[in-house]
Amino acid sequence: MTDLTTLDATTAADLIRRGDITSEALVTACLDRIAARDGDIGAWAHLDPAHVLDNARSADAARRAGQGTGALHGVPIGIKDIIDTAGLPTEHGCPIFKDRRPMHDAAVVTALKNAGAIILGKTVTTELALLTPSETRNPIFRDRSPGGSSAGSAAAVADLMVPAALGTQTAGSVLRPASYCGIYGFKPTRGLIPRSGILMQSHTLDTAGVLARSIEDVALLTDVLAAQDPADPVSYARSQPSLRAIAMTDAPLPPLFAVIKTPAWDTDAQPVMREAFDELVSALGDRCHVMDLVSAGDAIEQQRIVQLAENAAYYGPLLKRAPQLLSPGLTQRLEAGLAVPAHQYIDAIRAREGLYEVIDEITTNFTAILTLAAPGPAPKLSEGITGSPIFNGLWTYYGCPCISVPVMEADELPLGVQLVGARGDDGRLLRTARWLENFLAA
Amino acid sequence: MTDLTTLDATTAADLIRRGDITSEALVTACLDRIAARDGDIGAWAHLDPAHVLDNARSADAARRAGQGTGALHGVPIGIKDIIDTAGLPTEHGCPIFKDRRPMHDAAVVTALKNAGAIILGKTVTTELALLTPSETRNPIFRDRSPGGSSAGSAAAVADLMVPAALGTQTAGSVLRPASYCGIYGFKPTRGLIPRSGILMQSHTLDTAGVLARSIEDVALLTDVLAAQDPADPVSYARSQPSLRAIAMTDAPLPPLFAVIKTPAWDTDAQPVMREAFDELVSALGDRCHVMDLVSAGDAIEQQRIVQLAENAAYYGPLLKRAPQLLSPGLTQRLEAGLAVPAHQYIDAIRAREGLYEVIDEITTNFTAILTLAAPGPAPKLSEGITGSPIFNGLWTYYGCPCISVPVMEADELPLGVQLVGARGDDGRLLRTARWLENFLAA
Repeated sequence: MTDLTTLDATTAADLIRRGDITSEALVTACLDRIAARDGDIGAWAHLDPAHVLDNARSADAARRAGQGTGALHGVPIGIKDIIDTAGLPTEHGCPIFKDRRPMHDAAVVTALKNAGAIILGKTVTTELALLTPSETRNPIFRDRSPGGSSAGSAAAVADLMVPAALGTQTAGSVLRPASYCGIYGFKPTRGLIPRSGILMQSHTLDTAGVLARSIEDVALLTDVLAAQDPADPVSYARSQPSLRAIAMTDAPLPPLFAVIKTPAWDTDAQPVMREAFDELVSALGDRCHVMDLVSAGDAIEQQRIVQLAENAAYYGPLLKRAPQLLSPGLTQRLEAGLAVPAHQYIDAIRAREGLYEVIDEITTNFTAILTLAAPGPAPKLSEGITGSPIFNGLWTYYGCPCISVPVMEADELPLGVQLVGARGDDGRLLRTARWLENFLAA
Repeated sequence: MTDLTTLDATTAADLIRRGDITSEALVTACLDRIAARDGDIGAWAHLDPAHVLDNARSADAARRAGQGTGALHGVPIGIKDIIDTAGLPTEHGCPIFKDRRPMHDAAVVTALKNAGAIILGKTVTTELALLTPSETRNPIFRDRSPGGSSAGSAAAVADLMVPAALGTQTAGSVLRPASYCGIYGFKPTRGLIPRSGILMQSHTLDTAGVLARSIEDVALLTDVLAAQDPADPVSYARSQPSLRAIAMTDAPLPPLFAVIKTPAWDTDAQPVMREAFDELVSALGDRCHVMDLVSAGDAIEQQRIVQLAENAAYYGPLLKRAPQLLSPGLTQRLEAGLAVPAHQYIDAIRAREGLYEVIDEITTNFTAILTLAAPGPAPKLSEGITGSPIFNGLWTYYGCPCISVPVMEADELPLGVQLVGARGDDGRLLRTARWLENFLAA
């Protein structure tokens, strides 16, 4: 019999719907694996096994009673601990928020529950979803970081503790851990997934995303999560094509990739990553067009300024409230953020309007942008860092959908390749990621 | 025979449409009055009489040929000199832009031309539409300021040089000069009138508006100007009810006013203004409910911060380019703006979201807010100021529609009362202004 923990969410939902497995059996398998391994990994911040098993049994009873089943009926999902859950603590990876229990579910949690999903528990986030590492270990090599800030979500999904989990990205907090842990990390177009009930560190950049072990899961979860959020000014109304249907359809033409290395290639990319990426580009041959994006260096800097200034506006009050409960790294970051002048911030916000046109031009003429998901493999824990988001921040700033696809490796360490798509065309990006995966597997 | 310069735009358009007067006659009367009086007043920055008369004759010929006439066919309109006009210079009241001739009309100028209006000329603006006075005199008492920054537009309309003119407001640049000059000044809901082609000093606050001598003119011009502007993120799509039809209909109920004096009443309102306003409130009796707006003090400060910071972002580069061509007051202002920290600016932007709810609550429960349009009568030229926008800035920050109605005076100096309406409900505000005027005339 299959180890239920190896199932992806799509397959698990199908098996539950058909009555081939129960939600209780799947949830039990996940909880058993967590019990056996999370002492070492440290992916979970809050778990209530008895409560979760109750919910799983209720889901099974509802199905047996012939009640309708949602797209994720009975399937356990992990939730990053900056996303509010009414039944479980939400502590933001920061002792200032210890024992905080929100009254309401975040909009994304409500959407998952409406689709029948079981909230398995809360996954560890780095301190306030920024750069100070959590205690989480990379499940592939435990002396390495899983990345951050969605550390627990990436580690839990990679370690088969849960089929999929929610993360968030302001610079590279979904794609970088996905690359380090050898799974898929998807940050959709800014505004596609509602942000109500998620800790805000930057209204301009924050985007919720998905960590999963198949592209179909990424599409399925995003379909469930996408909605207009009247409380969120960047949220937009759209017709509701199924991303999953688009993603799983074959494209009419093979894709053409714009290969953009950005100035960070020279300054930050590690030799093993450069070698693997150049090999990949060679393998793709005339499907690739290597080009410069003149504004990439500016965009890297503008994302940095916007995040730094908005971080200080949102978290700055904590510096006064309880400075002793913030890490030295965060304190330093907030102090730097408080010193950013408004005109520099406004310039960085304004500059984006013009850059949108350049990016839209590229994503019109190419199927996707092909670039690195991270500078190299997961850093060693002894380095005390979660790695650099320098290959992610600019695309988050542009608001484009991005996915890290686990198709490379070096010395058994996974390396993700990042595909960046046209804003608003998330389905086509996922379809292109599937093409890439199939091409390389052939 | 009527002196054609006394006609408002609505009446002039009707007479031209019926063939009772020609555009050429009306434009000639305006140009003659300007020639006779503008040496003293200084309301006009650029005029090309021969070109304007050609346009007026073309409008007359088109009408005689039976071609369609727009809502403002043949009617001359003045344009503040920060609004781009393809046929005339646009110099922003600043020698750095001397002889600047833009290639394209601003969206509002295109809209006026499409409605058949004749662009009579460019009206004087204060330096970059900020606080350093222009040379313009108040036409009622020439030793007084017309206010600013839409100084020439207000003075020209008040002095019967043109039936109506366009202005812009970031704090109080339409309503304050209207109050000082005894005419109507209307700043519609932010986003109703497109801003493309207008000098930007603050994307958060800048709003185009109308200076005129009747409420019907205000409505007619706004109907012509309102449009969605794809290039302007604050622009919004709406169904197109005629503001004029709403404004000229009688309300089903007499209005109920929320009288809000704000903390500036104690610090800035002059005795003659306090007395006149309190008399007005007494005359309105139980139509008025005097109340506090707890956030008003904060909003005054937040508007100030937002404008200061955005001014520095937009105009700061001029400090490097040609500091000797900026006034000392502006230089000081830009230096102060460059020092605003980003977190303070972001806080001021964020605070508005919550304040919208408070304002929407008030404008749901009351027909309009009744407050001062200015701290007192027009200041003397010898004071070297254009007056304070402290009673206007907060409503501009809220994005509400506001109108200054010339219904009070002290020692023959006009004083405006300001009505503030619900965001998006500009027609009801204008209808309420008409009710007020009729009530006081009765």
